[in-house]
Parts: sequence; structure tokens; C-alpha cells
Amino acid sequence: MARLERGPGRLVAFSDGVFAIAVTLLVLEIQPPEDFTHLARGLGELWPSYLGYALSFLLIGQVWVNHHVMFDHIRHVDREVLFLNTVLLMVIAFLPFSTSLLAGALRADAGLRTAVVVYGSTLWTAALLFNIIWAHLRRAGLLEASLDVRAVRSIGHRFALALLWIGSGIVVGAFVPVAGVVIIAAFLPAYYLPIRGEYGSDPG
Amino acid sequence: MARLERGPGRLVAFSDGVFAIAVTLLVLEIQPPEDFTHLARGLGELWPSYLGYALSFLLIGQVWVNHHVMFDHIRHVDREVLFLNTVLLMVIAFLPFSTSLLAGALRADAGLRTAVVVYGSTLWTAALLFNIIWAHLRRAGLLEASLDVRAVRSIGHRFALALLWIGSGIVVGAFVPVAGVVIIAAFLPAYYLPIRGEYGSDPG
Amino acid sequence: MARLERGPGRLVAFSDGVFAIAVTLLVLEIQPPEDFTHLARGLGELWPSYLGYALSFLLIGQVWVNHHVMFDHIRHVDREVLFLNTVLLMVIAFLPFSTSLLAGALRADAGLRTAVVVYGSTLWTAALLFNIIWAHLRRAGLLEASLDVRAVRSIGHRFALALLWIGSGIVVGAFVPVAGVVIIAAFLPAYYLPIRGEYGSDPG
Amino acid sequence: MARLERGPGRLVAFSDGVFAIAVTLLVLEIQPPEDFTHLARGLGELWPSYLGYALSFLLIGQVWVNHHVMFDHIRHVDREVLFLNTVLLMVIAFLPFSTSLLAGALRADAGLRTAVVVYGSTLWTAALLFNIIWAHLRRAGLLEASLDVRAVRSIGHRFALALLWIGSGIVVGAFVPVAGVVIIAAFLPAYYLPIRGEYGSDPG
Repeated sequence: MARLERGPGRLVAFSDGVFAIAVTLLVLEIQPPEDFTHLARGLGELWPSYLGYALSFLLIGQVWVNHHVMFDHIRHVDREVLFLNTVLLMVIAFLPFSTSLLAGALRADAGLRTAVVVYGSTLWTAALLFNIIWAHLRRAGLLEASLDVRAVRSIGHRFALALLWIGSGIVVGAFVPVAGVVIIAAFLPAYYLPIRGEYGSDPG
Repeated sequence: MARLERGPGRLVAFSDGVFAIAVTLLVLEIQPPEDFTHLARGLGELWPSYLGYALSFLLIGQVWVNHHVMFDHIRHVDREVLFLNTVLLMVIAFLPFSTSLLAGALRADAGLRTAVVVYGSTLWTAALLFNIIWAHLRRAGLLEASLDVRAVRSIGHRFALALLWIGSGIVVGAFVPVAGVVIIAAFLPAYYLPIRGEYGSDPG
Repeated sequence: MARLERGPGRLVAFSDGVFAIAVTLLVLEIQPPEDFTHLARGLGELWPSYLGYALSFLLIGQVWVNHHVMFDHIRHVDREVLFLNTVLLMVIAFLPFSTSLLAGALRADAGLRTAVVVYGSTLWTAALLFNIIWAHLRRAGLLEASLDVRAVRSIGHRFALALLWIGSGIVVGAFVPVAGVVIIAAFLPAYYLPIRGEYGSDPG
Repeated sequence: MARLERGPGRLVAFSDGVFAIAVTLLVLEIQPPEDFTHLARGLGELWPSYLGYALSFLLIGQVWVNHHVMFDHIRHVDREVLFLNTVLLMVIAFLPFSTSLLAGALRADAGLRTAVVVYGSTLWTAALLFNIIWAHLRRAGLLEASLDVRAVRSIGHRFALALLWIGSGIVVGAFVPVAGVVIIAAFLPAYYLPIRGEYGSDPG
């Protein structure tokens, strides 16, 4: 066990596996139309499934990037991190279900309010776990000594921002479902763009 | 083949893959409700599926941790280990099926006794294989020389404890199914907490 | 984050995971016949599924090879590459759906025109992303200095060729669906064969 | 591309991914009984699915071991190896389908002859590809120089034996299906046991 606490290597590899599989399973939620004689029309009616597929794929891709941002700065992991990370993966691996709810509600034009709240809450719980893990890493002194204080704080801010942003999406989505989806989707470009002053310069 | 017997690296990587996939496939057992007009209620009725999902995800996560505890202390693997590990993975990869039985029985309010026994037996067989592999590693002298005798014994005790604990869950579950599930679930916190004196102190 | 930009190692590992899963999920699209009393005949009627399976498996295998050709020559990745690669994987992971459309249309003998265009367009979009990523790598100076100019250009030509070839398959397929499939399939041998003068000689 | 030909590292990692996924997907072919009131009986009737699951899991596990035996002795891979390995993976990833045919035919008590021939042929094709790849590696001089001639020959014999053994299973299975399955299953213990004089002694 001592050795298990040394480096995050295997935890990262296992997590990468779950991310890669969760993202690839999303396509199984898209069912081809039954009627092939009017295939083009049938495919057009599946637009909510494509939307859900693209949104969830890009969001999980983003979570994957942030998972690395977090675990790149860890010296070793303890049992709490192992447990919290498993719960985080459990939430991520649940997204294909939330996605099929969202797509199904859009297609049925019913239950959209519930579906958006469930979808947002899945993401929000993932964001919450990021915040809990980061706080634990700081408190338990598991971060690399070389990581400067400003970076620790700015990464923490970023994780807190996710919580607020997606939380707003859920609240708005409970009243105007489509607006909630738009807010959550708007999180993607905001997150891929670097935040000014947050990270070091481009390596050479 | 000589080389295959040198290190457990590839065996661990292959096993990690199976663990990651088994855990992520669990979500496919949760079917969205057909009726989206009463989505919230329909989702509420799926609680046995969520329970099964969470329970199995955390249990497989724990098995994964223990798999590393075991294979971190191996110098090399022989054909017996290769074979026994394949059987272990076969049992783990069967858990999504056992989980959907458990969730289905809770939802149908029928066959719960059988479902709990099958679910528990799947886990118990995995625990049995851990004990067999560990005994073989000790007997065949495949463990690292640096591993001290106390650690070897305490890891062995831990694996034996799993056998007893889950065995009790099955026996109780055969009479009072819900109590059996509770016993098996109670194994999770008991296992994530470090056992006093078993492992070295926190590094660094 | 600085560290994230250093090497493409993790991006490649994550991508390999998605490729491996996408390719293996293809088999789930093939449904066994319902009637086992005339199994041989039932299996014979599934030929479009086998065709789709083999074609998509080999094409994804080829995309995987080319993904490595591209990322073997990268010094580090930036946020744009991370984002573009995620979009590329999203397109690849969509192929099992496009494949089941193609097989379904061949089996139903209906909607084949649409299915071939959708199938080809999925591949074409993947090829487009290869071209965009390669152009970005060149422009942003992310390629290894040791890579000579001729190689950069010939790899670029290869990616551009894919765009033209598959584009032709789509255009032809919109009129004569089967001919479109043949053109896309013909891309496989053309691509596995080394192009004269493009790469260095066989090592050692 | 030059670099791609240097080591088999990535090819092995990608292949391991496909093996791990194919093996884990096998469980999706086992459908829980619809009727939970007589669950024990319903589960009993699923025995062909368990048999198919265990047989295919252990066989793929064995193929995985042999894949490593083969690629551990390779200095570098060329385009032919890349292509042949992709075809090999395509055949392996097809096994979940063949397995569900075998289980379905046993359950329906119909079409068993066809199912056994298809199942055996899938395995036989995999064995054939092993032989082709090994012959190519020898002919093209891609094997490690340190590998002695006796080992090269004995590995080759092993691959040829697989071809004969499974071939016999198919021929017998075409007349007495159950006997064919028994022959194929008997291949497992024969293969896990070391062959006298074939490999070096146990490392110390």
C-alpha cells in the first residue's frame, strides 16, 4: 500500500480509461431510425441525439483535461483521494444516461425541465468533486512543492467557477430548459480559452 | 515467454483496462423511462438501478485498488498467475450482469433472494480468487524480497476478511435479502479505512 | 497546465483508448438472427453488417496509424490541439452509428444514398480535422525541429489526398451509392501501401 | 512514419485495449430473464450464455498471452504487420458476435451445427493470422537477433498446432456440434500448460 501512495500514475491511467470509454459509449445512445425509406427525414429528427452527443463528448473531453491539470500537480495519493476519484469517475460514467435523458426529452418534447436539471446536476456533482479533491490535496499537503501559490489559487478558482456556472445553468434550466442547456454549453468555449495570467507562458 | 514471466506490467495494464470498462459499462444497464411526460416520477422509480450502479462501481473501484496492492509486490508472474488473473477478470466483468439482476429484482419486487445470492456470489468468487492468487504467490516465491513478512500476512488477512464478510452477506441475504445487500455495502467503508498498524506511515 | 503543454503522451494514450473502443463497439451493431432454425440463411442475410464492420474496422485502424504519424512529430500540444483532437475523436466515435446506417440501408435496400453520404461525410470530417490540425501544428511551430521539410510536406499531401478521395466517394455515392462505397473502400489499399519516396527506407 | 517502424510499443498498447474491451463486452450478450418471479429457474436456463461467456473469455485471454509472446520478440513493425495485426484484432473483436450465436443456438436447440462452425472459424482465422504474422516476421527479419532459432521454431510450432487443433474442432463440430465445442474448449488447458523444453527455466 505504501507504494500505492507514491505516485498518481495508475490512478491517472485508470481514470483515462474510464473517460475514454464513457465518451465512446455516448454513441450507443443514438438509435438509427426504423424506417429506411425516408432515411434523411428520420435522421433529421434525431437532432437532439446529435446535440446531446456533441455536448457531452466535449464536456467530458474538458473534464479529462482538467483531471490532468489537477493530477499533474500531485506528489502522491492517499486513500481519500482514491475514494473521491472513484466517486468522480462514477459521476462521469453516469453522463451517457443523463445525455440520453436530455436527448429523449428534446425528442419527445416532454420532461425537458427534469432532463435539464438531471443533466446539469450530473455535471455539477462532478464539479463539486473537483473542488473537494482540490481542497483535500491542499489541506493534506499532497501537492508538489514546486507548484507556486498563485497557480494553486487560480486552479482552485477555476474549479469554483465551474460550480457556479453549471449551478446557474441548472437554476435557469428549471424554469427555461433551453436557456439552461445554452448556459451549460457556453461553458465549453469559456473553458477552452486560457484565462489571462493564470498559466505560465508557452514553452519554447 | 521467458520475458513474459519477468514483470507484471502488461498484466496490470490489461487488468486495468478490464476494470475500467466493466465499471463504465454498468451505466448501460440503466434504461431511461419510456414515458417522458412524467419523467421525474419515472426516474424516481429507477432508484434500484442507481443503487446497483453506485454499489457495483464502488466495489469494482475497491477491487481495482486491491488488485494493485497485490500486484505491486510481485517480482514476476508465471502461467498460473496469468490463468488465475484471467479467471478473476472474468468474474469482475460478469458484475454488470449481476448488478442488473439485483436492480431488476428490486424493481420487480420479485426474485430478490436469488438476485442477492447471485450478486454476492460473484463478489465472493472474486474474493476467493484474490486469496488463491496470494497463496500461490507466497508458495511459489514470486513476491518481492523487500516485502516484509508482517505486510505479507496482513495483506493475506485482508483478503481472507473479504471472503468472510461477503460470505456472511450471502448467507444473511438468502433469508433477508435487503440485510444481505446492507452487509455487502457496509464492506465498502470498512475497506477504504486503513487498518491500524497494517501499512507504513504516510510518506513525506 | 504548463506541463500539459509539454508532451503529447497523454493525449495519444487517451486517443488510443477512444480508437480501440470505437473499433470494438462496431460488433454491437451486428444483431444475431432471431430465427435459429435457418441460422445459415439468416447469417447470410447479414452480409451488409459484416461488410460495414470490416470496412469501418480497417478505416479506423488506418486513422489510428495516421494519428500516430501526426502526433509522433509533435513537440508539445496547446489548447487548440487539445480541442481539435477532441473534435476528431468525437467524429471517429460516431462511426459505429454511421456504420449501422450503412449496413441497415443495404439490408433494407432503401435509403442507401443518404446512408452512403452520411458514412462518407463522417470520414471526410475526420480527414478535414487531420488537415486542420496539421496546418495548425505547422503554423504554430509545434512540430519537432528534426522533422525535415520534405516529410512535413508529404504528410500534408497525404492528409489532403484523403480529403479529395473521400470527397469523391461522397459525390459519386450521392448518385450511385454502391460506387461510392467502392471508392471509399479503395482508399484502404491505396493508403496502406507506402507512397514512393515519401518516407525513409526500411530501418535495419 | 520511420519512427512508427521502430518499436511495437503502441501497436501492443492498442491491441491490449481491443482485447480488454472485446473480453468485457462479452457480458452484454447475456440478457437477464424477463420474469423475476421464477428468477432461479430463469437463470438456470441461461447456462449456454454462461458457457459461451467463460469459453470466449478464457480463449481471448489466451490469445492475448500469445499476442505478447509474439510481439515481445519483435524489433520493429512494418506496414504489413500493422495491417495484419489490424485484421487479427478485427477477428478477435468479432468473437462476442460468434459467442452470442453459439449461446443462442444452444438455448434454442437449433442451428447448433452452423453456430459451432462459425464460432470455430472465427478462432481459426485468428490462429491463421498468427501464423501469417509469424511467418512474415521471420521472412522480413523483424525478429530480435537475441531470439534463438529453437525458440523461433517452437513458437511457430505452437501457432501451427492451434490451427490444426481448432480446425479439427470445426470439422468434428460440423457433424457432432457438442463434440466440436469440447475439442475447442480442450484447447485451453493444453495451451496454458507449458510445453516441455519449449521455454527457458523459471527466472530466479
